[in-house]
Amino acid sequence: MERQPHDLPKDPYSGGSNRPLPPRGFPVSEYEHRLNRAQRLMNEQGIAALLLTTEPEIRYFSGFLTQFWQSPTRPWFMVVPFWGKPIAVIPEIGAAVMAATWLDDIRTWPSPEPEDDGISLLTWTLLEVAGRTGRVGLPMGPETHLRMPLADFETLRAKTSGIELVDATPIIRALRLIKSETEIAKIAAMCDIVSDAFAALPHLIAPGDMEEAVFRTFKIELLRRGADDVPYLVGGTGPGGYEDIISPPASRPLQAGDVLMLDTGSVFDGYYCDFDRNFAIGHATDVTRRAYDTLYRATEAGLRAAQPGATCADLFATMWRELSSGSESGTSTGRLGHGLGMQLTEWPSLTPADQTVLQPGMVITLEPGLNIGPDRMMVHEENIVIRDSGAELLTRRAPIELPIIGA
Amino acid sequence: MERQPHDLPKDPYSGGSNRPLPPRGFPVSEYEHRLNRAQRLMNEQGIAALLLTTEPEIRYFSGFLTQFWQSPTRPWFMVVPFWGKPIAVIPEIGAAVMAATWLDDIRTWPSPEPEDDGISLLTWTLLEVAGRTGRVGLPMGPETHLRMPLADFETLRAKTSGIELVDATPIIRALRLIKSETEIAKIAAMCDIVSDAFAALPHLIAPGDMEEAVFRTFKIELLRRGADDVPYLVGGTGPGGYEDIISPPASRPLQAGDVLMLDTGSVFDGYYCDFDRNFAIGHATDVTRRAYDTLYRATEAGLRAAQPGATCADLFATMWRELSSGSESGTSTGRLGHGLGMQLTEWPSLTPADQTVLQPGMVITLEPGLNIGPDRMMVHEENIVIRDSGAELLTRRAPIELPIIGA
Repeated sequence: MERQPHDLPKDPYSGGSNRPLPPRGFPVSEYEHRLNRAQRLMNEQGIAALLLTTEPEIRYFSGFLTQFWQSPTRPWFMVVPFWGKPIAVIPEIGAAVMAATWLDDIRTWPSPEPEDDGISLLTWTLLEVAGRTGRVGLPMGPETHLRMPLADFETLRAKTSGIELVDATPIIRALRLIKSETEIAKIAAMCDIVSDAFAALPHLIAPGDMEEAVFRTFKIELLRRGADDVPYLVGGTGPGGYEDIISPPASRPLQAGDVLMLDTGSVFDGYYCDFDRNFAIGHATDVTRRAYDTLYRATEAGLRAAQPGATCADLFATMWRELSSGSESGTSTGRLGHGLGMQLTEWPSLTPADQTVLQPGMVITLEPGLNIGPDRMMVHEENIVIRDSGAELLTRRAPIELPIIGA
Repeated sequence: MERQPHDLPKDPYSGGSNRPLPPRGFPVSEYEHRLNRAQRLMNEQGIAALLLTTEPEIRYFSGFLTQFWQSPTRPWFMVVPFWGKPIAVIPEIGAAVMAATWLDDIRTWPSPEPEDDGISLLTWTLLEVAGRTGRVGLPMGPETHLRMPLADFETLRAKTSGIELVDATPIIRALRLIKSETEIAKIAAMCDIVSDAFAALPHLIAPGDMEEAVFRTFKIELLRRGADDVPYLVGGTGPGGYEDIISPPASRPLQAGDVLMLDTGSVFDGYYCDFDRNFAIGHATDVTRRAYDTLYRATEAGLRAAQPGATCADLFATMWRELSSGSESGTSTGRLGHGLGMQLTEWPSLTPADQTVLQPGMVITLEPGLNIGPDRMMVHEENIVIRDSGAELLTRRAPIELPIIGA
């Protein structure tokens, strides 16, 4: 009988932790705390209810965790009242899973029902909580969207025309920016597993392997080591650098002189890591080594600068200075890092314009990039949590020298 | 050196095909055909441009395939003009990948830029294509949503106030309902791989295994056999049936008398399968066997009834009759099947209300369910394509008798 190994023995390559995984889920007290913080902010702004339609937001207040969100067919709603527990307004198919959360008030309808896919039920619920003329908060700002048909939203607006809709992005953002220790432990566990898998990778692949096979091997390795899922694995290979950093794998073999980069957002219990590692295939040129070194130093500068009280713009400036100090030219993919947690990327952004002040409990990436010649680049990425004393690495720091595969 | 097997030898358990995988991507002629069909419908309705914001729609017209959509930070836009190729209005970070598609007109801005995240660029593009008072189609109907911040959409509306927005769901739906042979081949390849993996599963797991480990083993098996990704794997176990069908795995061992169900939406080259299989652990009671048999017969009835010209409501009625013919009670999770393709679930739905007429080229699931006692259920699922001559199975038909693991 052929069997897959579920539980790996201590890994010879990990050099590392093999810490036990943290428990799944959260104590009810964590949801109560989230709700209390939300309701305090709602109260300050005279908001009677929050209306939520997206996976991370509904999960944040309930613990509702399912891959069923992959199906775009049915809308899911949550109403967070200014007092009392959140109310789930959801398709019947989710009732059993939602009933296993800490919520009490679960209202369902038999979806899909295109003529009225929960809109009447949601209307009644909103009017009950907010009254005919209350103020309702809905995320409308950067990095949010409305996950329901726009025509249904218009119907809802017409049926609740006395209700004033205001942007709830600042409330949701303020809550989710600061992670609890339980949340941090999940992200740290994911970073640990991926750090181990990156350490093992040189033993699993070799020059000549197709890029597609390398991606597949790495994805399997992540699952074997305890990732629940690998929703995000991108990367690139190319002589001395890669052309872009969001591609699926190509039908191209790893060749001597290539740089291989893999960047993964893997998930443990609904929480992401998001970091990459670079490898040289066979050998690395001086240009490649120098680029790696510059990126390493930019990250070190970022690690020192990521102190409570500094702004995201400060952190950007510090890293950018390091990237531009030599003959090289920095590249930013639009920013030099970002938040992460329940999603692969979250607020804030490390850009010149983002004045978000770093606070203990924020989890962010440091992601400096360099242009190499006209059409190649190299990117480094680490994940950190901001502590009172500064940055704490959640990832195992990338090697100080570019690792070589098949030397 | 430990290495993962990338290419499996002929599988002793598959009993099956091991057909070579179809080539990735599409010929340009396929995109031209999609565009021509869209522009014909736009012309009929006096629509000057389509505005698209969601992954499947943008990929449908361009071939743009990346997991970068996992990041909610940046909006992505496509404008399909009434004449000429689609125009991509996208963050700079996607320029290289988009440039590798058949599109010529790629307009980028340095995102994230919360103050103006592509809205000015999109405004100019819309006004250029549709004029100040043209009619623009935007998907607003069932199973669609708008993937951009609502506040940015309001800004766009204000800047293009002369433009009339109309619902483009009927156009997008009409196009995507009918799959090309190239699309069908990708779905069929995915169904083949998953059929093989389901056939192998009894050799990979055993009574006593934790549900979490079973999920992990199956996911790894799917990747080993050629799935690009497994974005959806849900299921359940329980004595004689399971409580719900959208759960992540539990920390519970497989026990004699359990029914195990696994349901996966796995992906090859951006195309999904969506089907499940049931297994008894150790032994099955007569009640369990009878339920399995009823579901098997309901699916057979569905396979016979899935003829061009029949409606989705007809197909629902045929299967429902079979489910209700004995002492058992059918359950529908809201419907008895649905479309699939670029997404795990797509239009249409097998419900009493859905009058969609089945046509050759439609790919759908048949998904009958039964209640077993007060709080258990069993669900079967197959994937088919409608042909001139009737239903063609894309999945390898489930065994006529419930397979037993660890008998």
